[in-house]
Amino acid sequence: MTPILHLARGTISMCVQAALEEANLPHRLHWVDFAAGQQRAPDYLAVNPKGRVPALVTDRGVLTETPALLEWIAGIATPRLMPSDPWLAARVRETMSYLASTVHVAHAHKMRGSRWADDPGARDAMRDKVTSNIADCAAYLDAQLDGDWVGRAFGVADLYLWNVACWFPGDGVPLDPFPRLHAHHDRVAARPAVARVIALHTAD
Amino acid sequence: MTPILHLARGTISMCVQAALEEANLPHRLHWVDFAAGQQRAPDYLAVNPKGRVPALVTDRGVLTETPALLEWIAGIATPRLMPSDPWLAARVRETMSYLASTVHVAHAHKMRGSRWADDPGARDAMRDKVTSNIADCAAYLDAQLDGDWVGRAFGVADLYLWNVACWFPGDGVPLDPFPRLHAHHDRVAARPAVARVIALHTAD
Repeated sequence: MTPILHLARGTISMCVQAALEEANLPHRLHWVDFAAGQQRAPDYLAVNPKGRVPALVTDRGVLTETPALLEWIAGIATPRLMPSDPWLAARVRETMSYLASTVHVAHAHKMRGSRWADDPGARDAMRDKVTSNIADCAAYLDAQLDGDWVGRAFGVADLYLWNVACWFPGDGVPLDPFPRLHAHHDRVAARPAVARVIALHTAD
Repeated sequence: MTPILHLARGTISMCVQAALEEANLPHRLHWVDFAAGQQRAPDYLAVNPKGRVPALVTDRGVLTETPALLEWIAGIATPRLMPSDPWLAARVRETMSYLASTVHVAHAHKMRGSRWADDPGARDAMRDKVTSNIADCAAYLDAQLDGDWVGRAFGVADLYLWNVACWFPGDGVPLDPFPRLHAHHDRVAARPAVARVIALHTAD
């Protein structure tokens, strides 16, 4: 079967879609409408009981979690989209893990505070801290970049970083004060595969 | 040089230490005293500007982020502590990513709410939701386990799951109602390398 990517507009599923496009892997798309709450509908929970995107349905089963999906796609792409050197691969995984467990989480406190508190006032307090947290993340990421790409060559971690950084201006953190991060962002966005994904996610 | 693991008592650094022990890799320990705020001291921030543990100082540089450290150790261990089959490796990474970005984050809202809100009342509201969030995570993890180990054989993801589940009872979620998770927890804790780590972290 052709793998089916379950995705939602503007979410972290963009980078997995971009990885499939970069790797020229045949796939079908199934859009989940977050505004309509489709991620909580029984038919979607049967695909991914976590009620999140992305999820990729393959011959061998359903795979979720962005870092796992990206690395799986990286491994079947030609050329591979992860470093073959174990230490460099570890450094790339370090960045991907930071994006998943710190940066994405910091961003999620703006719109998804209900995950961590029921009180509306608490959610407002979380929202108030998003800009300063994301600014710290941007500064760290900018300092870490020391070449064109997260690894020595372009790879899936670049797509992940690009996707997360798309949210920074909306979180009150323009990219201009972070010149390496800003240049990286433009470099990734200019790739034809990524441009195709952006067009799909920003179309009317 | 012998790698130096920077770790703190009872934290997620336990599983990285256990992986080094399981792999019989020579290493030295540098304990960071969180109660004394050493993770924010300039000499530690020079090692890891994120002010977190674990961090491993090696000949090639400093590596941080638990999933990256675990997989790096897995790759140099004999036998390897990750599946060689790409799909099974992807499934193991899926679990590790969920532990890092959902379960650990849910737990952190009990004691580390200041990361995401400045208002003390908001931190209380976050703390109030920890038990129900961790119970959801435990139910998901219990449903995912379908054999003795996260992968087909014992590996670093088992150490990660064990480490995170150590916190569940203190978060108000005893393991008894989750029989597969509970059995897995006891199975990992009974390993001699893990027992050595537990002894070091619980000593007076």
